Amino acid sequence: MKLEKPYLIFVGDAHDELAAKTSFGVVDWCPDDCVGQFRLPGCAADMKLPDLSMEEAHQRGVRTVVIGVANRGGVIPDSWIKPLAEALRKGLSIANGLHTPLDSIPEIAEAAKTSSGQLIEIRKPVGIDHIATGKPRGGHRLLTVGTDCSVGKMYTALALTKEMQQRGMDADFRATGQTGIFIEGAGVPVDAVIADFISGSVEKLCPAADSEHWDVIEGQGSLHHPSFAGVSLGLLHGAQPDVLVLCHEPTRTNMRGLPDRPIPDIVEAMEMNLEAASIVQPNVKFVGMSVNTKHVQNSERESLLKSMEDRYQLPCEDPFLTGGKSIVNQLN
Amino acid sequence: MKLEKPYLIFVGDAHDELAAKTSFGVVDWCPDDCVGQFRLPGCAADMKLPDLSMEEAHQRGVRTVVIGVANRGGVIPDSWIKPLAEALRKGLSIANGLHTPLDSIPEIAEAAKTSSGQLIEIRKPVGIDHIATGKPRGGHRLLTVGTDCSVGKMYTALALTKEMQQRGMDADFRATGQTGIFIEGAGVPVDAVIADFISGSVEKLCPAADSEHWDVIEGQGSLHHPSFAGVSLGLLHGAQPDVLVLCHEPTRTNMRGLPDRPIPDIVEAMEMNLEAASIVQPNVKFVGMSVNTKHVQNSERESLLKSMEDRYQLPCEDPFLTGGKSIVNQLN
Repeated sequence: MKLEKPYLIFVGDAHDELAAKTSFGVVDWCPDDCVGQFRLPGCAADMKLPDLSMEEAHQRGVRTVVIGVANRGGVIPDSWIKPLAEALRKGLSIANGLHTPLDSIPEIAEAAKTSSGQLIEIRKPVGIDHIATGKPRGGHRLLTVGTDCSVGKMYTALALTKEMQQRGMDADFRATGQTGIFIEGAGVPVDAVIADFISGSVEKLCPAADSEHWDVIEGQGSLHHPSFAGVSLGLLHGAQPDVLVLCHEPTRTNMRGLPDRPIPDIVEAMEMNLEAASIVQPNVKFVGMSVNTKHVQNSERESLLKSMEDRYQLPCEDPFLTGGKSIVNQLN
Repeated sequence: MKLEKPYLIFVGDAHDELAAKTSFGVVDWCPDDCVGQFRLPGCAADMKLPDLSMEEAHQRGVRTVVIGVANRGGVIPDSWIKPLAEALRKGLSIANGLHTPLDSIPEIAEAAKTSSGQLIEIRKPVGIDHIATGKPRGGHRLLTVGTDCSVGKMYTALALTKEMQQRGMDADFRATGQTGIFIEGAGVPVDAVIADFISGSVEKLCPAADSEHWDVIEGQGSLHHPSFAGVSLGLLHGAQPDVLVLCHEPTRTNMRGLPDRPIPDIVEAMEMNLEAASIVQPNVKFVGMSVNTKHVQNSERESLLKSMEDRYQLPCEDPFLTGGKSIVNQLN
């Protein structure tokens, strides 16, 4: 899966900023690839990008409209149809990460037929392909894993990749979710892969490489999350990581979407990941912890990170704020 | 997914008995539902059922033709097309567990349009559905897990279900693979489910039940098999088993399809399954080991099982030979 840049970010009629989470992720991590935004009346989110019509986007060289807003109930609202069909008529591609495929809407499907642009369905089930072998392969691989879903595994992988590249290391970010794919312009939507091929799709995403090369792989879910742990384990085996970074949100009390289920103990989460990963990489180890301090008061951040470092004997950092230097230091 | 019985077993041009493994499984476990077989010239497998034409099958009340043969390279041979189209014209349904969908063949798709029978694609990807919650639910659940793929998890689950039903226990077999689905006439093809929904599909397959009820769930793969462990873990969490039975093939030296990878240690395999299952069922335990002695000499079988019982302190039995009584004894 490969997307053409630059992008127009379709924020649509996002009813709040959370609904536009994907838009913010793309703008945060590839601002130079985002030429403008498209917003409908009533849109409650603002990317601080120029508001462009499809015609203006076309004139400014946009190649792909990225749908960066989550809709309610998986339905594409009527108000989106006209501008998206217009984008196709202007020759733009549309990248859609929603579960509803765009070609299920007749007016959009019709416009796509004669367009030089493409409908790219990020979440379209990925079918029969490579069966994982688990065979040892060259190159280094870092995987971000989590105590829960949505704790910052993608942001961590992106921040670490950036830090590594700034140091002149040969490093690539490998996207496994829709926002990551929009940012990188390529990747595998692991949650949409047919079950038998989860690990295989990740083996293909980060194949054997030179001995100095690093793939920094975006993790998904958590081995402790009973809704999605199968995805997390398949990804872990396919990634064959030599190093892991644990991502954790210290203010969260229960696992995402499961009010009765507490967040797992950090040591237990690390042990379970090491045990599972050691099947494909016996020397796997943790090199640090990425602590998402978004909801921690500024005055408490430093002492929290210090106390976690003392307790777990690993660099603990919020890479989104400070770049992950202490973690990357461990890779030499 | 629900299949109408009785069946005609389509053995086609199976080039050896292994290619007809699915046919043997169905005939072994639901002989009364199998009215006949359909074989093409050169077929090297025999189910010892009457050879019937599609017309004869129709006259004898067959409702569904079950494709019980694996083809080479996933292609439907030309020689199958005429008889399968004929089956549809006679109003029979066809259940297909191959990866190639039957309606990709124009002559079969055409015949299906006007048939009162249906094309049932067992391996068709199962899409967006229930997201697992992992919430505790009523009823008892037994899951068969394995040290490897293809060690007898389905046969074990079927044998234990039969033994439990003979004792008057309220027990249902829950199928998770194509042969199991043919046998039971219902189930979920877990290997074909979209990754995000693996656990959810199994939660739906074996929902909350009465306190005396047992679901006996067919396991898939192995937590130690790097090609498919994500499927195995998602299934384990969705099944929320209170008891596990470990299935093992004692003569196997390497994991299926992976010549360089040895079979895991039995104790390690049990510990990994218990640890993972305890996330959804803290009191989970092993109640026995199902030892597949197909390749063990008759003279050595008894001493092997005895030595394993002594070593692992669990009933060790080959349920296909002796019904699994010692394992079922542990359920009271």
